[in-house]
Order: sequence, then C-alpha cells, then structure tokens
Amino acid sequence: MGEKVVLAYSGGLDTSVILKWLVEKGFEVIAYVADVGQQDDFDYIRQKALATGASKVYVEDLKEEFVRDYIFVALMGNAMYEGRYLLGTALARPLIAKKQVEIAHKEGAKYVAHGATGKGNDQVRFELTYAALDPTLKVISPWKDPEFLSKFKGRTDLLKYAKEKGIPVKATIEKPYSEDENLMHISHEAGKLEDPAYVPDESIFTRTISPKDAPDEETLLQIHFKDGIPIKVVNLKDGTEKTTPLELFMYLNEIGAKNGVGRVDMVENRFIGIKSRGVYETPGATILWIAHRDLEGIAMDKEVMHLRDMLAPKFAELIYNGFWFSPEMDFLLAAFKKAQEKIDGWVIVKVYKGNVWPVARYSPTSLYDQNLSSMDVEGGFDSTDSKGFINIHAIRLKAHNVVLGSKDPFEWRKGLVDV
Amino acid sequence: MGEKVVLAYSGGLDTSVILKWLVEKGFEVIAYVADVGQQDDFDYIRQKALATGASKVYVEDLKEEFVRDYIFVALMGNAMYEGRYLLGTALARPLIAKKQVEIAHKEGAKYVAHGATGKGNDQVRFELTYAALDPTLKVISPWKDPEFLSKFKGRTDLLKYAKEKGIPVKATIEKPYSEDENLMHISHEAGKLEDPAYVPDESIFTRTISPKDAPDEETLLQIHFKDGIPIKVVNLKDGTEKTTPLELFMYLNEIGAKNGVGRVDMVENRFIGIKSRGVYETPGATILWIAHRDLEGIAMDKEVMHLRDMLAPKFAELIYNGFWFSPEMDFLLAAFKKAQEKIDGWVIVKVYKGNVWPVARYSPTSLYDQNLSSMDVEGGFDSTDSKGFINIHAIRLKAHNVVLGSKDPFEWRKGLVDV
Amino acid sequence: MGEKVVLAYSGGLDTSVILKWLVEKGFEVIAYVADVGQQDDFDYIRQKALATGASKVYVEDLKEEFVRDYIFVALMGNAMYEGRYLLGTALARPLIAKKQVEIAHKEGAKYVAHGATGKGNDQVRFELTYAALDPTLKVISPWKDPEFLSKFKGRTDLLKYAKEKGIPVKATIEKPYSEDENLMHISHEAGKLEDPAYVPDESIFTRTISPKDAPDEETLLQIHFKDGIPIKVVNLKDGTEKTTPLELFMYLNEIGAKNGVGRVDMVENRFIGIKSRGVYETPGATILWIAHRDLEGIAMDKEVMHLRDMLAPKFAELIYNGFWFSPEMDFLLAAFKKAQEKIDGWVIVKVYKGNVWPVARYSPTSLYDQNLSSMDVEGGFDSTDSKGFINIHAIRLKAHNVVLGSKDPFEWRKGLVDV
Amino acid sequence: MGEKVVLAYSGGLDTSVILKWLVEKGFEVIAYVADVGQQDDFDYIRQKALATGASKVYVEDLKEEFVRDYIFVALMGNAMYEGRYLLGTALARPLIAKKQVEIAHKEGAKYVAHGATGKGNDQVRFELTYAALDPTLKVISPWKDPEFLSKFKGRTDLLKYAKEKGIPVKATIEKPYSEDENLMHISHEAGKLEDPAYVPDESIFTRTISPKDAPDEETLLQIHFKDGIPIKVVNLKDGTEKTTPLELFMYLNEIGAKNGVGRVDMVENRFIGIKSRGVYETPGATILWIAHRDLEGIAMDKEVMHLRDMLAPKFAELIYNGFWFSPEMDFLLAAFKKAQEKIDGWVIVKVYKGNVWPVARYSPTSLYDQNLSSMDVEGGFDSTDSKGFINIHAIRLKAHNVVLGSKDPFEWRKGLVDV
Repeated sequence: MGEKVVLAYSGGLDTSVILKWLVEKGFEVIAYVADVGQQDDFDYIRQKALATGASKVYVEDLKEEFVRDYIFVALMGNAMYEGRYLLGTALARPLIAKKQVEIAHKEGAKYVAHGATGKGNDQVRFELTYAALDPTLKVISPWKDPEFLSKFKGRTDLLKYAKEKGIPVKATIEKPYSEDENLMHISHEAGKLEDPAYVPDESIFTRTISPKDAPDEETLLQIHFKDGIPIKVVNLKDGTEKTTPLELFMYLNEIGAKNGVGRVDMVENRFIGIKSRGVYETPGATILWIAHRDLEGIAMDKEVMHLRDMLAPKFAELIYNGFWFSPEMDFLLAAFKKAQEKIDGWVIVKVYKGNVWPVARYSPTSLYDQNLSSMDVEGGFDSTDSKGFINIHAIRLKAHNVVLGSKDPFEWRKGLVDV
Repeated sequence: MGEKVVLAYSGGLDTSVILKWLVEKGFEVIAYVADVGQQDDFDYIRQKALATGASKVYVEDLKEEFVRDYIFVALMGNAMYEGRYLLGTALARPLIAKKQVEIAHKEGAKYVAHGATGKGNDQVRFELTYAALDPTLKVISPWKDPEFLSKFKGRTDLLKYAKEKGIPVKATIEKPYSEDENLMHISHEAGKLEDPAYVPDESIFTRTISPKDAPDEETLLQIHFKDGIPIKVVNLKDGTEKTTPLELFMYLNEIGAKNGVGRVDMVENRFIGIKSRGVYETPGATILWIAHRDLEGIAMDKEVMHLRDMLAPKFAELIYNGFWFSPEMDFLLAAFKKAQEKIDGWVIVKVYKGNVWPVARYSPTSLYDQNLSSMDVEGGFDSTDSKGFINIHAIRLKAHNVVLGSKDPFEWRKGLVDV
Repeated sequence: MGEKVVLAYSGGLDTSVILKWLVEKGFEVIAYVADVGQQDDFDYIRQKALATGASKVYVEDLKEEFVRDYIFVALMGNAMYEGRYLLGTALARPLIAKKQVEIAHKEGAKYVAHGATGKGNDQVRFELTYAALDPTLKVISPWKDPEFLSKFKGRTDLLKYAKEKGIPVKATIEKPYSEDENLMHISHEAGKLEDPAYVPDESIFTRTISPKDAPDEETLLQIHFKDGIPIKVVNLKDGTEKTTPLELFMYLNEIGAKNGVGRVDMVENRFIGIKSRGVYETPGATILWIAHRDLEGIAMDKEVMHLRDMLAPKFAELIYNGFWFSPEMDFLLAAFKKAQEKIDGWVIVKVYKGNVWPVARYSPTSLYDQNLSSMDVEGGFDSTDSKGFINIHAIRLKAHNVVLGSKDPFEWRKGLVDV
Repeated sequence: MGEKVVLAYSGGLDTSVILKWLVEKGFEVIAYVADVGQQDDFDYIRQKALATGASKVYVEDLKEEFVRDYIFVALMGNAMYEGRYLLGTALARPLIAKKQVEIAHKEGAKYVAHGATGKGNDQVRFELTYAALDPTLKVISPWKDPEFLSKFKGRTDLLKYAKEKGIPVKATIEKPYSEDENLMHISHEAGKLEDPAYVPDESIFTRTISPKDAPDEETLLQIHFKDGIPIKVVNLKDGTEKTTPLELFMYLNEIGAKNGVGRVDMVENRFIGIKSRGVYETPGATILWIAHRDLEGIAMDKEVMHLRDMLAPKFAELIYNGFWFSPEMDFLLAAFKKAQEKIDGWVIVKVYKGNVWPVARYSPTSLYDQNLSSMDVEGGFDSTDSKGFINIHAIRLKAHNVVLGSKDPFEWRKGLVDV
C-alpha cells in the first residue's frame, strides 16, 4: 500500500469524494472524524469511511477538551471577532487539526489532508496548526490542488464521481446554506445569504428557538467563576446545578437555545481579504461571555482591564486567522491568564427572549468600593484629594490652550459632522 | 455687587443651596441651566433661581448640538466604556461646561461653579473642560471646598439651610437612587444599588418599558448613514421617516423605549479610582450603535477596522474621563473621521422586546465580495493563491517549532485552565 | 507589435535580461528608470535599454517628491522598523511604483513588470502599490514566474543569456553584497552578510566615512521645523543655510556621511516571514529623525505623544510591508498629521564621529514649564495638589493589596530573573 | 518616645532638616539609607543621622537586587521613556521604597517619610509603592505639607534651620544642577538646564568621559544572554570575563563610561503634567539595551516582537510613573517574560567614542533563515508562494480603489507636507 495520509473526514459528499480520490492516487487513507459536538451519526460515518476505502477510522470525542482548553481559554479574553462573532468555528479548528497531527504521529503518516475550500478561513486554520505542531508534515488540500480542481468543477462533478464510485449520497435536497456545527455554535453562510441585504427567514435557524416563541418567563442563572473560569451554573428557579466544564456548558446551551439567545447576522472580514456574511447561533457561550465580563467589572483592576481590552481585538483576530498555536498567542495568553487571577465569585443573569442581562454579582475578591471604604487603610476617600487630582490633569490642557493662542483650539471639529 | 460667577444650575436642592451660599459669600451669581433633553420645568427653574438670588438666568437649549456634535461623534468610534456603557452622562458634560464658559465670556465672569460631588466623574469632566477652553477661569467646586463641606455634612444640613433661606424644596420623598438624565440616557446609581448583588426591581426603570411588557410585534427600522453619520430613519411598517439629527434620534429613543431597549446594569471603574455600580437606560443610542457597527462590517476596510477597534477602548476612556476637549482626542478623531469616509448605506434592524438585530444591510460603497467578484479587476479570487498565502504565514510557525526542538511548544498551556 | 508593458528598469543585469525576455515573448517594452538619488549614469542606462529592445525609455527624476512626500511623511511618525531601520528602501518603492502606474496610464499599457526577487520585500511593495493605484493592471514578476525561473536558475544563466543576446555586462567583479541605493540610504545584504555572526569590515560601507576617520571637530547644526516638517538647516559654524526639502536633505546627507552617521547592522523580519540581515547607511535621515523627536519633546502634548508612540511600530510595519497606499495608512496619517500641528521651532544637534546629540531646542509653541509657570493661568503649580493626585492613584493599588490578603502580591516576580 | 517613622535618608541638607523636624514633632525617627550604587560615604551618613536625632540607622546594600530584579526586568521590555530615557531613577525608587516598607514592618513603624519634592516624579514613585505594598502605612511627605512648606520657603530657610540645630552642612558650593545618582545612571536637571535652549558645557558630565577624550581604539564586547537575561560579558581584546549580574553590569558601566557612552539630553513629560529637561548618563545600560534588542532580532518571533514593541511605550510609562508594583505591570511582565524565552546567544558590540554598534550575533535558538533553509521541513521557501501571498493581500486594496471610483484614492495626502 502507498503512503499513509490522515484525512479529516466528515462523512459528507466532499470529504467522501476526497477520500476515494486519495485512495485512487495510491494513498493509504486513515479517516479521522472529530466529534466536537456536532449532531452526527458517528457509526454511520465510520462505516461509510471504510466502505469508501479508508484503511482505518478514528472517531475522536473532543468535546470535553474543546470546552475546557479552547472555549474557556477564549473566554479569558472575551474573544469576539469584529465586535460580534464568538469564534465557534475558529476555536474548533485548531483542536481538530491538533488531534489529526497526533494520529499522524501514532500512525507514522507523513501526510495530512482536509477538505476545506480555497476561499475560506478554515484551510488556513488547519494548515497553520499543522505547521505549528509538526513542520515536517506534508499537507494535501484538494480544493487548492489544480488537478483536483480541474476534475471537480462543481457539485455536479462530485455527485457524478460519487455515483461512479458507489459512494452513498443522502437523498436529501441540498441545503440552501453552508453550515458548520459544533458544541459552541452553528454557522450559516453562502447561498441566499450571499446577498447582504437579504433578510433570512426563521427557517434558517436550527439551534435556537425564535425569541418570539421563547418562554414568557425569565430564567435566572447564577454562574460561578474561579480565576475567570466557570465552575458552576445554578438555575435559581428549579435548583439545577452543573459543575463540570462540559455539563455546565451544555446546560447553558440548553437554556440559551430555549430562550432564543445568541443569534448574530453580520458581514465579517475573512483572513484571506474578502468580506463574507455569516449568521451564527451561539446560545451557551453568549450567556457565558456576558456573565464573565460582568464579573470582571467588580473583580478586575481598572488598568488591567483597559490594557486587556485594547488587546482583545488582536486576540480575537489571532483566533479567527488560525494562529491559535503561535508564539504571539502564547504572549497574549500569559498576560490574559495573569489578568484572570482572582476573578472569583458569581453573576446572576436574567435570560429572556433573546436577552441576557446581568442583574447581580458578588466577588470575595471584589475591588468594589463598598469593600474599599470599609478597608482598614489610611484615609479612605477624601473628596479634597480630587481637587489636586483634577488640577494636575488640567495642567496639560491649559498649556495646550495657551500655546494655541486666541484661536478656538477645537474649531476644526466643526467639520466632523456635516449634516 | 461682587465678582461674577456662572453656576451650572439644575434647580435641585444642591445647586439651589450652592447658589444661595455663593450669594452670601458676596458673589453675583448667574444661574445657567442646560437643557440637554432632561424632563424639567425650565420656567419653574428659572423662577426658582431668581428667587434664590441669581442676578440673571440663562436657559440654553443644547439638544441639537448634543446629538450632532457629541453623540454622533462618539458613534464614529462606537464609543462604549468597559464594553457596555454608552457614555450618556459623560458626553453631555463637556457640552454643558463649554456653554458655561461661553456665558462666562459673555458676562465677563471670572468664576465658574458646579455642584458635582467630590467622589464622582462629573467634577472632572466639568473642570477639565473649563481648563481646556479657558485656563484663566477660576473654578468653585463647593463639594470639594473644606468650608462648604464642614458646613454641609449631609442632606439634613442642606434641608435645614434651604428652610432658613426660604428655598422651596419639593415635598416629594427623596429618590432611592441618584439619577442623571438627558436626551441620550438616564442613569441610576447609589442608594440600594450600592450593593452590587442587589437585584433592582422594575420600578427603577423610568425611561424604557419592561421588555416583558413590550409589543409582541417586531419593529423594523431602516437606518441610513452618510460617512458614518445617521441621516435618515425609516419605520418600515408605518413609513414614518425622520431626517434631522435631533428628530431621528428622538424617534429612535421613542422606538427603543417602547421596546425595552438599552438597559445596562454594571460595575464600572470611575476615573478617580473607585468602582461604582450604574444602571443605565439608553434606548435610541443602543439602536444606533448596533446599526452603525453593522454597516461598518460591509463598508469599512478590514485593517482600518481592526486598528480603530484597538483604539476604541481608549476613545471611550477619554470620553469617560472628561478629556473630550483635549489634544489626544483630536488625534483620535482625525483618524476616526478618516475611517468613516464612505461608510454609506443603510441597515435594517429588528427591534423586539429588548433586542436589536441587524438583519440586512446595503452600501453603495460596499467592499463585500459580491461586488468584488464582479469587479473588472485582474484575476478575481484564485483559490491556488491561498496556498502561497498560507505557506508563507506558516514559515514563522515552522521555525518556532524547530527552534523549540522535540518539546511540545505549547505544553505550558495545560496550566491555563485548571478545573 | 504586442501588448505594452512598463518595466521598472535599473540598467543592471537582471532587468536587462528581463527586458529582452519580455521582448522575445512579444511585448512592447517601455523601460522606466526611476531616479530616486542613486548614483547612476542615466544616459548610459537609457541607451542600454534602447539597445536591449525597449521601444521607449522614461527616466524620471523623483528626488524632490521622494524627500517631501515620502521621507518627510515618514518623519511625522518617526518611522523606524523594529527599532532601528529607517526604511530607506521601503519608502522609495511605492513612489517608484506610483510613477510606473502613471506611465502605464499615459502609454495605455495594461502590463507592468518589475525585477524584484520572489523572496524579498520589494516585490510586495511594488505589487501592492500597483493594486492600490490601478487594480486592472496585470503584473509580470519574472522572479516568481515558473517559466522564467526554470530558464534562469542562477547568475550563470543570466550571463549566458546576456552574452547570447548581446546585452553589455559590466566587466566588474560581482559585488560581494546585494545593494539598494537611493537618496535616503544604501543597504547591503546577502553574500557574506548572510552569516549573522560575520563582522563586516570597513570596505562594505560606501556612503559614510568611518567614524574613526571622521573629523575631530564637532559640527553644530540647527534644524528648523514647521508643523513637524523640516524647513531650514543651518550649520552654526560656517553659516551654511539650506531651505528647500531636497537641498536641506542632501546637505544633511553630506554632513552625516562626513561624520560617519547612520550605520546600522541588524537582523530584521521580512514581511514574507523570514529573517534577514541588513546593513544600512542612512546619514541625513538619522540626523533628521533625532532632531525631530527632540523637538516633539518640547512641543508635543504628552498624551498625544504616548498614543502616537504606541502606533509608531505599526506605522513602520505598514511602510515596511508595502502598505504605503492603503486605507489603514490613511487612518494613521490623518492622526499623525494632527499630532504635528504646532511642532514648530528648532533643535541644535552636535554631530561627531557617528554620534548625533541634541543639545538645545526652542519652540514658539513650547509646552515646557518655564512658559507654563509664567502663563497667566489660574494657580500655576501647587505642590499640595500632588497629594490628591497621588492619593487617588493609590486607591486602586491599595484595593489590590487588600484583596490579595496577607500574601505578598508580587511574590511571583521572583521567578522573572533566574540567574 | 513618639510614633515611629522610617525616613528615607540621604545625608543631604533636605533629609537632614526633615529628620530633625520630625524629631521635633515628637516622632521616633529611624533613618534608612539605601545604597543603590551612588558614590557616598555611608559611615559618615550613618553618623550624621544619629547626630541629627535618629534613634536608629539602616544602611541597606540594594545593588545586587537593583541590577537583577529591576534593571534586568526593565531590559526584558527594552524600557525607554519617550524614546530615550532609560529610567535610571524611576527603576531605583520602587526598590528603595520596598525596602523602606520592610524596615517599617520590622520596626513596627506606622509611618514612612521621604524628602522628594512636590513637583516631581519621585514622590509619586515612593508613595505608590508604599500604597501597593502596605496600604495601612501613613505617609509623611514634608514637601507637600503646608506646615513644612510655610516654615521652609527655600534653601536659605533650610540652611538657617540646619545652623540653629547644629546639623553639619558641607562647605561646598551648591551644585548648579540637581542630581540623582545610582548604579544605573546619574541625572542632571534644574538650574541652568531649565532653559531648554541652553547648551550645557562638558563640566556637567560626571560619570562619562567626553567622547572626544575617549580612546581612539574600539572596544569589542561579547554579551551573552539566556532567556533574555545577561549572563556573561567578555572583552574580546583582553579576555576579561564577568558573569554575575552585579559584576557584569558594573563592568559595562566601566567600559561605557570610559568610552563616553550613554549621554542623553531631552525634554520629557513628567507624570504630574509638566515638561522637564533632563540630562542623563547611563553608560552600562545603554550598551545592554542595544545588545539585547539586537539579539531579539535573531531569536524573537516577528509577531511577538511587534506586539511587544507596541506595548513597550506603555511599559516604560508605567515604570516612569511609579507603577512598578501594580497589577497592570504584572499583566505586562507575564507576557514579556514569555517573549524572552529562548532569547539565547550572544551579541558582539563595538564601543567607540559614544557609539555602541552591534556587529555580530549568534543564537542557538535562532529563527534566522540560514537555519530555516536547512531545516528538515516541508518545502523550504518557494518563490511562487509569494505570488499567492501578495495577490491575497492585494484584494483589499483593489476593492478600496474600486469603491472610491475614478478619484485618486490618496489625493488628500497632498496636503500632508506643505512646504
């Protein structure tokens, strides 16, 4: 048999065709299926891989690791791409690719392959992870391979090839959108969504209920953190409690989904320089992100927060672009980890028809002034100190005014808003 | 008569006592009432000022200027303090103080006075604005004045003095919260809210209806922008159209309030180093901020957006801290203005029970790939280009791996999440 | 004749071969020679281009524009890549490419070509400029063209081809380094320099005298600026005065070169992800950069400077990477321009054997405290104000200490330096 | 006896008067003398303190700690304030204050006192350190104390008081400048230097020889680092080797001083909002900073460096402003420490008449391409990859051009330089 290649395999049309194509090119194909929480029939996928020519199949349950070492780490920096996207797909890719590299090592394979397209972000995320974790691995990326591209010009060619090769194709109608699903979110893009002015109807949403159909009652959740990491979720109404990373995250997903939480519709900037419209459903993480930031309000030092917040867009950009495993991410994470020390306590959020409102918070390490004023420290707050504080801050501004002379120093601003 | 002082006068107990106190110290007091959209009886306030001893009263309508030159300018940078607070109070203060300086100039007054407390942000905002606009003005800030502080130790002393001096005091019970209101928002703080774990009940909210009582129907608004500035709002259901800054902003307030939009409950960091809990209602601006960022998604260059977003927390911090009139704000605004050129087009938002969802957007200057792909430019997108793009980005990561040798380069991260 | 192509032509071996190769491929080649101040015989180059098959030759004097619209603009942000490199080559490339695009427009050419290698930065700078200024232009880059690369595997192939085609080749021995020269600097790289531990001997330097051979006398220069732009240089010893951009810059070059100023030897990070060693000689600009920053010390507001300095590495990176013509550069320049308003006055620098020391400075718009203290502003500096200023800054630190309890809050730092 | 106060005591006129004044106010004064490498007769100072009324004297040798835990930590971030000042005084203050707090704890003192003026940075650095390390300590700062200030209006009052109280005053003429000296540097300010246009003559410099009088021979030093920390200095001419932090730093000082290295003359921005002119001599650290950055060139990842460099001005600002012991400094240090891992190897610098030139460097963990190209990794560098890399970066720029239509997208820049 030929060289071994580990293929990231989903069971869908594309990666099934790729599997067969690799086999026909003489490779020994090891199919690798990552379970990151998507709704799939893994037994069926395993069988299909073998039937299509895989010499071996790995189905890896990565859910626990995904929550703990990816989602919770992103939470440390409140990672949000371009102000809105919680990075559900971007966070799963490096984990999937990392496990793929491990399997390659175990199998002694020198090749890895994936089925991500040549216009998207995922190819980058896969391949940069391979490079970071094992620079000697050779990458096969059919959707950037001229030979493959000339053979398969569209879905029709794929279907034809599948038919020829006896690859089973689900009889279902092609989905109107391209989707990516995992424990954290489901994304929808392409198809009709390509027109940014098209208003998607309710049918696009598959994970969250419509806020209009959500319960008329609010749900109160108390979320506990230790060093910025979620450690317990309590439903204050029915007393449900979850404490392990996976369980508590799945429970937040359940509550979020039921209450229509976490829908986002946006145009974003792909790493490869083009804009793209995405519709996302991220129920549980949305609740978590909001609660976590709220606790930081009471437990994080001001200057630490402001520095961290300045770096947060960069953090999200690195995740989005596929630099999860990179020295610059290490650089940021070292600081972000430091910033999460003593972010302890709980937040109560109200969840209601799409909304998540923090309404109360408590921290044993609170820096809030109630504690401050009762501290046994010199002086407490003395209002007359404010005088000196302000006067000294004013010196610079006075000098600026004097230097600019009689002219209104801010006259130019009149042109800022011209309506 | 003595030296002239222009007092920022609200008609409330504090500034009425201050007015009288200044008169008794021998000043000629010019009372200045800024109408920034708060719900007040300005005729009554005018009369009260005169009755309390003011030699003259100015009531200035600043609403239009507030919307255009403050709120819309903040919108250019999507200003949001510590991720949530839209800066309703912080934006009004420099405008109020600027007009106060103008009145001082007109009246030939060498003194300005305000009634902001010595523990808050507003004193800073007032006084830094005075300093920036006229460094020769002398500031009287009774709540930092040892003489005033020793005379007035609390509300009881103020009431007693008011009674002695015949200053009318409203018979109403003291509000349980301290509030600041203007066209953009109403804030609630202090009182019971000082316990960050206290869940405020519905009664605290005065501007927005409870999302639970909001209409069961969604409202669809189309918001038009030119160079990042809102120029038109259309209610797609009933056809209502608003085009001037003040009218469209008030209309957004109306729609937002009716739909329970814009409530925030948070612990924030004051400039003077203590944490403070605030509850805010900011209906119209919340809609505007969301729509504006959505349009940027389609019309703003990626790198410009990412640079701007890195500076946005600093922008918000400067506003919060009272540095609206400062050279560093000029520095940022020059760049932000540049970034808003060609942010043209419209966004449709769905407003529903506290939620504001962008669902469609269009820009004649869109950078979105639908247009890109149809551009008469060399090549369009060639998937094989991605190969080179990724390979080159991977070089650094490969080198990093090689240098670190056989060790897992990212092993240290195992300590990041320890649950 | 075939399609027109405008080739950036230097007269050297590479671009001569490319010229001929393009002709043989059927193009009508318009040779374009940019005079950015390199020491060249432009008449000879013109003749050589025609002899090699060019249908037309443009020799463009870009020196004045280079100084004013590139070097002086970079100076506004004190652009320095990775702390040391003054970007002499990086600044010239977009100008050269811009003029090339203009010639293409004038000639109705649809193609542009350049001879930069496929491993360097210059190819990027050329091609990004083409893209930014005319996205419809087609780029021919032989050193990335598989056909060309397979034909010309090294210098020997080039020489052989030149001989065959009658292209004159200078009899001189191949330089041991690769060089790029213009008005601003000369760079040396490759060859023996590829070993970063190799200490280059004096012979490598061609623009600056060795500091050891420089005059034993100091030269005192007074450099005047208006809004951050140099407007006059005076030699305080002999009274020489230069006032136009080009003249004053060339004079600074002369003085710098004579005194051994501006040598840098460093390993830098190329845009395309590999490290590279460069040795630079940048005499005049080094003097200018030092003087300009010194004047900013006295005339620029603190907070503006600190914000600008945080963005300065990004500014240099954009120049280095070839994004001179980009919206994000516009974003930065709008702010940087604002920051240079009122950076007026002069600086005296001592130039001596490689050193440039500012020793005196004066600004009519100085923010320095001598002026401040004599200002007719309220109060001057009151030392007791410092008390309040410090106390308020201390609140946060006290709270941090209290929250961390009995433990030394900074104990972890003991691991920082482990020697 | 009264309450105990630990006074930071220098033996000079100011702190001697303060010592006596505190005694007369009824305090038991413990004099604390920090030896951070200044040239002083510590026995004499000890005797003087006792003679002036101190109940006890501590003379603490902090030199080793200063180099290792302050100077070397600052080096990790190449800390340089406003582009030039190496922070010699700013780095010593938190160490001095930290030891003072330790003595206060040992002695059970509730008060600490210092003699820094009310207009400078040092008061802030002392007092913020006290606050961070023990918020319960009470601070006595006579130069901000109205009682002290009214008693001592100038040097004459101090001298008169000293005479009355029998405090010995050195007969030497008052220095024309105010100086601060330690192992790292000596600073000169005030006096004649207050005129920023005054050119100081050679007599001001006390630590470094004039470059004009420095040896005509270059000195070659090889400086070795491990994880970014200096571990060995070798003089390549005479073979001198130094390996402990203190010894190697002092040796660099010696070589630097002898060669006129490290002089800086600048106007800087004090934390308290005024500008100030300082002249500094920092011989050894200047050499170290230059060598360290050079090694980073070869051993540090590009993106890590660029992120770190963006934060470096903030790092320097925090040191300058006295926030050495602060949570935000912890935040930065955690990242900076990470960035220094594997910054191993050596740099050779030439030291000559004020200049320090890196001329060679080697790292076992080099990321330089010589190593890269020989790596056993997939592919090496493929020039044709650059095509895809550039094309993809160009997409954004093309779209920007197209959107802006026929207009020159960069026309506005013509206004940037108007000379």
